[in-house]
Amino acid sequence: MRYELYYWPDIQGRGEFIRLALEQAGANYLDVARLPAQDGMGMPAMMDLLQNSAVPAPPFAPPFLKAGKLLIAQTANILFFLGPRLNLVPEDDASRLWANQLQLTIADLVTEVHDTHHPIAGSLYYKDQKAEAMRRARFFIAERIPKFLNYFEHLPVPKAKDAPYLIGDALSYVDLSMFQIIAGLRYAFPQAMRHQEPEYPRLLALHALVASDPRIATYLVSPRRLPFNKKGIFRHYAELDA
Amino acid sequence: MRYELYYWPDIQGRGEFIRLALEQAGANYLDVARLPAQDGMGMPAMMDLLQNSAVPAPPFAPPFLKAGKLLIAQTANILFFLGPRLNLVPEDDASRLWANQLQLTIADLVTEVHDTHHPIAGSLYYKDQKAEAMRRARFFIAERIPKFLNYFEHLPVPKAKDAPYLIGDALSYVDLSMFQIIAGLRYAFPQAMRHQEPEYPRLLALHALVASDPRIATYLVSPRRLPFNKKGIFRHYAELDA
Repeated sequence: MRYELYYWPDIQGRGEFIRLALEQAGANYLDVARLPAQDGMGMPAMMDLLQNSAVPAPPFAPPFLKAGKLLIAQTANILFFLGPRLNLVPEDDASRLWANQLQLTIADLVTEVHDTHHPIAGSLYYKDQKAEAMRRARFFIAERIPKFLNYFEHLPVPKAKDAPYLIGDALSYVDLSMFQIIAGLRYAFPQAMRHQEPEYPRLLALHALVASDPRIATYLVSPRRLPFNKKGIFRHYAELDA
Repeated sequence: MRYELYYWPDIQGRGEFIRLALEQAGANYLDVARLPAQDGMGMPAMMDLLQNSAVPAPPFAPPFLKAGKLLIAQTANILFFLGPRLNLVPEDDASRLWANQLQLTIADLVTEVHDTHHPIAGSLYYKDQKAEAMRRARFFIAERIPKFLNYFEHLPVPKAKDAPYLIGDALSYVDLSMFQIIAGLRYAFPQAMRHQEPEYPRLLALHALVASDPRIATYLVSPRRLPFNKKGIFRHYAELDA
């Protein structure tokens, strides 16, 4: 199966949670919007699927994934679908629900990260909501980062001793997403994370373990890994990291 | 199977999406936190599950559902689980993914509704973030309600002619959730909805159809249906409905 991922071509954003799963599994996939428009790819191909009223199951927004005849949107939903196919989740129903539950909790955190720099409207520039962003970011750092990371840090430990995995005894897509959360929070809020990180040894160990996975390590230094920047979800503005 | 729903006892909130599904299906369930503490129920029972470190799959927050040995959290995840058991989603995998995708899009809208009155922090009172709330609500009404509702209004029409269902040819849990969205937006933003509603005839027909479902109609006039209020997700503040 060759998967087609559709996501904004110049940011990690929510697409990155899908990319990490596809990359770790060595899946055959196209990152469509980043490919040339003259080959029928690029942004025109993505916008066509977003705006074409003949699409039977239209997405509300990127990311979305084409897998054969299926077109699937919503990050956690895409990962729910891909999990067993990429061997990135235990196959039993209870484990898949548990993985989905954790992934949706990560999605909630991601939305809160986004809203630190866009607390008023996605259609406004950051500079036009900076005062509100500074206020929201203070609460995010003081209350929400600890609330979320403490929850994940103290999830039941798997049976395999010393393994930091969040689900079962092997790497899952939830672990890959938690890697991205730690990487993103470190990029966006370096000062806050320097203070808080020592509280989360398990999550840091998980981050390091994922970073050292051979396929992920290769991916991270490849041009396929976009850098963090000031257009994505995790953004570094020094004034928000007080 | 007797289900146990755990949710804050004095608001509709996210729990209402689960209640509507259980009620429409005539399921046997307990709304645990609303039952007497002296019977082992009530808030103590809910807080115990939230704080007990021996719970193998702990929830981050309510709502959560106990179904036999399973403890499941995250609204969309609970509905994904319940859907086939309550006969509220087509059974094939593609339909279940599609339903989940739509439910997650509804969940995104619900978060945005919440943030109209809490754009800075959940830990602050509304009055302490009212200026920011007024600014966010203006954008929500002008840009986000139309964006979301137009998306749902123009989803592909099912084969059964004249049926407003969002998925397939029968009532699904997504339809019940869309009923709640329309009801909630009408409560919170009556002026804005009076202006915008004529754009969404399909969603209004769906709202009316769900309201006239015999079990839902019975539920809505029963004491089990909590009223909308100023503690929930949909809140009416006249100054936010300009």
